[in-house]
Amino acid sequence: MEPITGRALILACSAIGAGLAMIAGIGPGIGQGYAAGKGAEGVGRQPEAQADIVRTMLLGAAVAETTGIYGLIIALILLFANPLIGLL
Amino acid sequence: MEPITGRALILACSAIGAGLAMIAGIGPGIGQGYAAGKGAEGVGRQPEAQADIVRTMLLGAAVAETTGIYGLIIALILLFANPLIGLL
Amino acid sequence: MEPITGRALILACSAIGAGLAMIAGIGPGIGQGYAAGKGAEGVGRQPEAQADIVRTMLLGAAVAETTGIYGLIIALILLFANPLIGLL
Amino acid sequence: MEPITGRALILACSAIGAGLAMIAGIGPGIGQGYAAGKGAEGVGRQPEAQADIVRTMLLGAAVAETTGIYGLIIALILLFANPLIGLL
Amino acid sequence: MEPITGRALILACSAIGAGLAMIAGIGPGIGQGYAAGKGAEGVGRQPEAQADIVRTMLLGAAVAETTGIYGLIIALILLFANPLIGLL
Amino acid sequence: MEPITGRALILACSAIGAGLAMIAGIGPGIGQGYAAGKGAEGVGRQPEAQADIVRTMLLGAAVAETTGIYGLIIALILLFANPLIGLL
Amino acid sequence: MEPITGRALILACSAIGAGLAMIAGIGPGIGQGYAAGKGAEGVGRQPEAQADIVRTMLLGAAVAETTGIYGLIIALILLFANPLIGLL
Amino acid sequence: MEPITGRALILACSAIGAGLAMIAGIGPGIGQGYAAGKGAEGVGRQPEAQADIVRTMLLGAAVAETTGIYGLIIALILLFANPLIGLL
Amino acid sequence: MEPITGRALILACSAIGAGLAMIAGIGPGIGQGYAAGKGAEGVGRQPEAQADIVRTMLLGAAVAETTGIYGLIIALILLFANPLIGLL
Amino acid sequence: MEPITGRALILACSAIGAGLAMIAGIGPGIGQGYAAGKGAEGVGRQPEAQADIVRTMLLGAAVAETTGIYGLIIALILLFANPLIGLL
Amino acid sequence: MEPITGRALILACSAIGAGLAMIAGIGPGIGQGYAAGKGAEGVGRQPEAQADIVRTMLLGAAVAETTGIYGLIIALILLFANPLIGLL
Amino acid sequence: MEPITGRALILACSAIGAGLAMIAGIGPGIGQGYAAGKGAEGVGRQPEAQADIVRTMLLGAAVAETTGIYGLIIALILLFANPLIGLL
Amino acid sequence: MEPITGRALILACSAIGAGLAMIAGIGPGIGQGYAAGKGAEGVGRQPEAQADIVRTMLLGAAVAETTGIYGLIIALILLFANPLIGLL
Amino acid sequence: MEPITGRALILACSAIGAGLAMIAGIGPGIGQGYAAGKGAEGVGRQPEAQADIVRTMLLGAAVAETTGIYGLIIALILLFANPLIGLL
Repeated sequence: MEPITGRALILACSAIGAGLAMIAGIGPGIGQGYAAGKGAEGVGRQPEAQADIVRTMLLGAAVAETTGIYGLIIALILLFANPLIGLL
Repeated sequence: MEPITGRALILACSAIGAGLAMIAGIGPGIGQGYAAGKGAEGVGRQPEAQADIVRTMLLGAAVAETTGIYGLIIALILLFANPLIGLL
Repeated sequence: MEPITGRALILACSAIGAGLAMIAGIGPGIGQGYAAGKGAEGVGRQPEAQADIVRTMLLGAAVAETTGIYGLIIALILLFANPLIGLL
Repeated sequence: MEPITGRALILACSAIGAGLAMIAGIGPGIGQGYAAGKGAEGVGRQPEAQADIVRTMLLGAAVAETTGIYGLIIALILLFANPLIGLL
Repeated sequence: MEPITGRALILACSAIGAGLAMIAGIGPGIGQGYAAGKGAEGVGRQPEAQADIVRTMLLGAAVAETTGIYGLIIALILLFANPLIGLL
Repeated sequence: MEPITGRALILACSAIGAGLAMIAGIGPGIGQGYAAGKGAEGVGRQPEAQADIVRTMLLGAAVAETTGIYGLIIALILLFANPLIGLL
Repeated sequence: MEPITGRALILACSAIGAGLAMIAGIGPGIGQGYAAGKGAEGVGRQPEAQADIVRTMLLGAAVAETTGIYGLIIALILLFANPLIGLL
Repeated sequence: MEPITGRALILACSAIGAGLAMIAGIGPGIGQGYAAGKGAEGVGRQPEAQADIVRTMLLGAAVAETTGIYGLIIALILLFANPLIGLL
Repeated sequence: MEPITGRALILACSAIGAGLAMIAGIGPGIGQGYAAGKGAEGVGRQPEAQADIVRTMLLGAAVAETTGIYGLIIALILLFANPLIGLL
Repeated sequence: MEPITGRALILACSAIGAGLAMIAGIGPGIGQGYAAGKGAEGVGRQPEAQADIVRTMLLGAAVAETTGIYGLIIALILLFANPLIGLL
Repeated sequence: MEPITGRALILACSAIGAGLAMIAGIGPGIGQGYAAGKGAEGVGRQPEAQADIVRTMLLGAAVAETTGIYGLIIALILLFANPLIGLL
Repeated sequence: MEPITGRALILACSAIGAGLAMIAGIGPGIGQGYAAGKGAEGVGRQPEAQADIVRTMLLGAAVAETTGIYGLIIALILLFANPLIGLL
Repeated sequence: MEPITGRALILACSAIGAGLAMIAGIGPGIGQGYAAGKGAEGVGRQPEAQADIVRTMLLGAAVAETTGIYGLIIALILLFANPLIGLL
Repeated sequence: MEPITGRALILACSAIGAGLAMIAGIGPGIGQGYAAGKGAEGVGRQPEAQADIVRTMLLGAAVAETTGIYGLIIALILLFANPLIGLL
């Protein structure tokens, strides 16, 4: 086993980069929780509109989810399909 | 036991990366707590709509949970199925 | 396998840069979640305007999505079509 | 006892990573406290709905707890079942 | 392949700089999401003014988009048309 | 007494990690204080519901306490039952 | 190709500086989004004043845009008309 | 007196760690102050309920105190009963 | 081409400093956007006072612009009229 | 006088740690100021309840003071009764 | 041209310091923007008081400008009348 | 005059630590300013209660002052009665 | 011209310190802007009280100015009357 | 002139520490500005109570000023009466 190579440096930085990418999840977490609270509040006020409220809430939350998924995708690529190694 | 190798550097950075990934949990924690507070407030006002409010709150919180789970997944992969080592 | 080369340094920094770029996702996550909450609240108050509210919410959220996508694009370019390597 | 080895670097970084992972607890702490305050407020206004309010509050707080538990799990794994050492 | 050269340092820093530039996307993401929420709220209250509200919301969001696009432009320039290399 | 060994590095990082883990206490501190303020406000308005309000407040605060306790546990493990040393 | 020169250091720092300058875009992004939301809200309430509201909103947003443009200008100068190189 | 040993590094990091652990006190300080303000407000409005309000406020603040005490405990352990030294 | 000189260090730090100076633009961006939103809101309510509102808004925004311009001036001086080089 | 020893490193880090521990004072400062403001507001509204309001305010502020005192204690221990030196 | 001298280090740090000093501009930018928004709002409500409102707004904003100007002065001194060089 | 000794390192870190300890002053500054504003507001509404309001405000602000004084004390000890030097 | 001396290090750090001291200007900038906005709002509502409002606003802002001036004083001392050099 | 000595290191760190100590000025700046705004608002509403409001505002602001003055004192001591040098 030889000393630290460029290949190892790239892979080590990929692990750090994957961790950084996940921090994006703070945003959707706060936003979707706000939507969930507003949805629960709305359902309590207009129970007859529950289906519509939940559908709207989920639709909006699904959009808010995307940037969290982007972070997950980049992290997964860095870990499982790391294309940077092929470029070395 | 030899000095620090590239393999060790990758694994050490994976430990740091796993810790960074968990920080994403701040978001869902705040958001779901907001949803829980709004849900409890709503149930107090319309006890007859409790089932609907709780269902909506949990549905929304489940979506907000996702980015926290993404962080957990990435951390678990970094620890248990670390694919970066195989690339060295 | 030789010691750390410039090529390796670029690729390692690309992994870090891709992680940094994903942090932009905090913004759309919070913003779209706000939109989802306001949309759900609105649908609960005016169920008859649901189609209009949802359309407006999605339109606005789609615009808010863009900067998250920009971050994804830059991260994907850094990983899969890294043009910096060709400049070395 | 020999100088710093790769094994020691991994274990030292695991200690840092475990500490970082616990920071996620800021989120559930704020969120669940908000839920507790809203619950206490609601119980004061509708004492007759106490059981429902508390149940909803605890249900929501239990979901908000999860990301804190994820951080605990990752920290415990880093400390007690550190799989990174086995990969060296 | 030679050791780290100035050319490599510039390109490595360009990757970091591109990632930093994308962080600007947090701003438009939050702002446009606020606009989307206000737009959806407004459409729910005055469905007959939907066309006007949406047009205004999109117009304002388009302006807010600009700084996110500026960040994208600088990142793309750093990656694909890196003029710094020509100055070395 | 020999120069810095891997063992010492792990223990030094454990001290830093224990300090980092305690920072999680910011969250429960803010959240439980909010709950205490809302509880006191509620008791002032409905003194007859005091027992119910306090019980709800304490129940919610107990849940909010958990992530602070998780941080304490990890710090205590790092200090008193440091399993990382056994892995060296 | 020689080792890292002062010229290379300047150009590398220019790439970092260009990325830092773009972060200023967070401000106009949030501010203009607020303006867009207020504009959409106002149009919904007074559709007959739409032209005036939109004109005011765009005028104000155009002023808010300036600091984002300043950042873009400095970044473009650092990249395309880097005067620092001529001073070496 | 010999140069820096592992023992010294651990003790130096313990001093830093003790300082970091105290930062957790920001949370209870803000939270308990909020509770004190709400309590004083409530006592002013319902002086006859003073005993109940103060008891509730102190009970809630006592719970909020805990994470601050955890930080104090960890800092005191690091200083007076530093178990890490025994592990060297 | 010789190794890194003091002249190069100054110019490299000037590039970083110019980037830092632009970050001041976050403030005017948020503030002027607030002014734009308040202006648009006011025009919608009192369309007959539009000229006065817009004039006031622009006057106030012009003052808020100044610190952003200060940052631009310092950055331009650092880049184009760098007086530090003459002092070496 | 010999070069930097482990003893000196510990004492130097103790000075930094004492400074870090004082930062905890931000929390009680904000919280107690909030309590003071609410107390003054309450006294203005119900001057006849002044004694009760002030007593409640001071009681709550005394509790909020504790984490600030914890930080002071740790700093004083680090400076005057530094137990770490005895462990070297 | 010789290697890095103390003179060069001072000048390089002056460039960084000038950039840091400009960051103070975030404050006046936000504050003056708030004043501009409040001024525009007030003019819309009491157009007959426009002269007084604008005069007050500008007077207040002029005071708020001062700390931004202080930062500019320090930056200009660091760049054009750097007295530190004379002290070397 | 000999090169950097442990004594010098301790004193240098004491200067940094004294600066860090003063940052705690941000908290009392914000809190006491809030109290001053609330006090002035209250005096305006109930001028006859001025003496009581001011006494309460000053009492509360005096308590909030304490953590700022703690920071001052630690800084003064670090500068004038530095006990760490005696321990070397 | 000799290599970096202690004198040069002090002067370089003075430049950085002067920049740091100016950051304090963020506080007065925000606070005075708030005062300006409140003053303009008040003048609009009670134009007959203009002189009193403006005098109060300026008096309060003058006090808020002080900490910004303190920062300026320290920066000017560091630059023009640097007493540290005399102590070397 | 000899290379960097311990004396120089202390003085250099004193310059940095003085800059850090001034950052405390952010707190009083924001707080006193809030007090100024509330005072101006109050004077507008009750011009007859102007003397009382202003006296209260100035009294409260004077207390809030203290932590800013503490920072100034520590910075001046570090610069003009640096006791650390005497301890070397």
